[in-house]
Amino acid sequence: MIIDCHGHYTTAPAPLWEWRKRQVAGQDPGPLRIPDDEIRETLEKAQLRIQRERGTDLTFFSPRAGSMEHHVGDARMSESWSRQCNDLIYRVCSLYPSNFVPVCQLPQSPGVPPENCIPELERCVRELGFVGCNLNPDPSGGWWKSPPLGDRFWYPLYEKLVELEVPAMVHVSSSCNPAFHFTGAHYINADTTAFMQFITSDLFKDFPALKFVIPHGGGAVPYHWGRYRGLAQDMGKPPLKELLLQNVFFDTCVYHLPGIELLLKVIPADNILFASEIVGAVRGVDPETGQYYDDTRRYVDAVKWLAAADREKIFAGNVSRVYPRFNRRRNA
Amino acid sequence: MIIDCHGHYTTAPAPLWEWRKRQVAGQDPGPLRIPDDEIRETLEKAQLRIQRERGTDLTFFSPRAGSMEHHVGDARMSESWSRQCNDLIYRVCSLYPSNFVPVCQLPQSPGVPPENCIPELERCVRELGFVGCNLNPDPSGGWWKSPPLGDRFWYPLYEKLVELEVPAMVHVSSSCNPAFHFTGAHYINADTTAFMQFITSDLFKDFPALKFVIPHGGGAVPYHWGRYRGLAQDMGKPPLKELLLQNVFFDTCVYHLPGIELLLKVIPADNILFASEIVGAVRGVDPETGQYYDDTRRYVDAVKWLAAADREKIFAGNVSRVYPRFNRRRNA
Repeated sequence: MIIDCHGHYTTAPAPLWEWRKRQVAGQDPGPLRIPDDEIRETLEKAQLRIQRERGTDLTFFSPRAGSMEHHVGDARMSESWSRQCNDLIYRVCSLYPSNFVPVCQLPQSPGVPPENCIPELERCVRELGFVGCNLNPDPSGGWWKSPPLGDRFWYPLYEKLVELEVPAMVHVSSSCNPAFHFTGAHYINADTTAFMQFITSDLFKDFPALKFVIPHGGGAVPYHWGRYRGLAQDMGKPPLKELLLQNVFFDTCVYHLPGIELLLKVIPADNILFASEIVGAVRGVDPETGQYYDDTRRYVDAVKWLAAADREKIFAGNVSRVYPRFNRRRNA
Repeated sequence: MIIDCHGHYTTAPAPLWEWRKRQVAGQDPGPLRIPDDEIRETLEKAQLRIQRERGTDLTFFSPRAGSMEHHVGDARMSESWSRQCNDLIYRVCSLYPSNFVPVCQLPQSPGVPPENCIPELERCVRELGFVGCNLNPDPSGGWWKSPPLGDRFWYPLYEKLVELEVPAMVHVSSSCNPAFHFTGAHYINADTTAFMQFITSDLFKDFPALKFVIPHGGGAVPYHWGRYRGLAQDMGKPPLKELLLQNVFFDTCVYHLPGIELLLKVIPADNILFASEIVGAVRGVDPETGQYYDDTRRYVDAVKWLAAADREKIFAGNVSRVYPRFNRRRNA
């Protein structure tokens, strides 16, 4: 069993993007009409084909991250856009319940306290069976105007996440800041930034059951693991393992073998969740290997020294432990 | 011969910081008086002791990065502060010419076109024998309001850098943005961000002789080398080697062995410059090794598969090639 904890509906049908265009233009976007067959087609030729080709079984599936665009419009616009995107994810997962597991977008909006996300989160989790959500630490889209994730600003949302037993993947959206290329700088920086925000906070003392997944292999964190261990130590914090590895997990969206080897070497196997982010940031074939850059399963498979029990954890065991609602759903 | 291309005068004597306090408070800071012995003392017990203990020979030495504080005050304040800091570096290098090589801070200021830095750069290079400079891609201190490094905004400064044969280390200062811990997020993010700005620009077509060193092991870049190769490829850019490895170099400020191994495995030896950033971001002893986290020489030494010729390049050969003024000085 191989479960990919990080996939986005980047290939969603055109009517969704047209609806969004009308919404952003201030027109009445009207009802969103997409026939089931159109949804099937976008998946059959992309995510489902890739699952088959690469031999993965299940993908945790959320709306396109770059299109969450929390910075566009106000909280009401963000909410109605989030509903559309989440409803579409629900339809995908209902059409292909053995291929996709639903993860929702939250209707965040710059400057708006995140409790505004609670109704949509509850709707998705309680009514539609979603098992996780994506939390944007920078709804301003590259201007980083929100308090750090350890700030009490975020606590009402965390209380709800704990109550619902829903982990959050820390995932920014597109960048309006010309300094930050979105998938090459903003995404990776956000991962690194969030981890450092966790180190400097008391978050997991206050919420011992709160769980975050940091995508894209944890940004720069595993590569600079010595730096982070040393910074925490200089601050008088407990070792990282104790400080946050009960609460923070990394995915495997690292697109070359040496990167995956480092991740597996440095981060405990209990804290790594398999993922590829299909169809995502990098779509080409690596001329050095003749394989797709984002075919992360090949890299994990190629690490021969990885113990079988650890491989199983990374491919499936951890995700069931970290996402209790997925686990119950699976065993239901 | 082991040359460390990245050290800051973090231990500068108290009168410097008092001068700065008066300046920032809007008082006449008066002349800066520091006896030679006081300079000697701050170095003997720190950087010089560490050089001896670790068996390194020479350190490229610049003002404390976190104190450049380009965001404080206006361009005039930045200029007079930069002069003080650079003059002090000059004194250090005059007192210990066989231990330190001078690298200057630039009087950048948010929103001010960087040609304002040219007089201080010329003074340092032509009059005081400096061989390099630190360039801050974000003089706003964590708000990222400057155009990307590929923008023509920066070109007048680049023309001067090329004319003077002076490479720039891309190095931010402290962060006023509460989202970014300065050494744990802002520094690393800036490295990653700058590299992606280089990928998306035509900078090195326009300035084939311009050279940048990206510190802290290149931020997240080597760990995500596949991602960056893939992103460039998806954009129709030439391979990274061709696109920018004649112009962009990484230092070895990565504070654990697996990180250094990855760096040496992924980045061509010609593009790696030895560095430890003493006395820098992480000051403790790693309980897992019993050695200082920032004793990066041990990690490079521990990589047994590194060819002797490559080791020599990383420890000394590359820095002489990348910094022509250092090379001429050394051979003078």
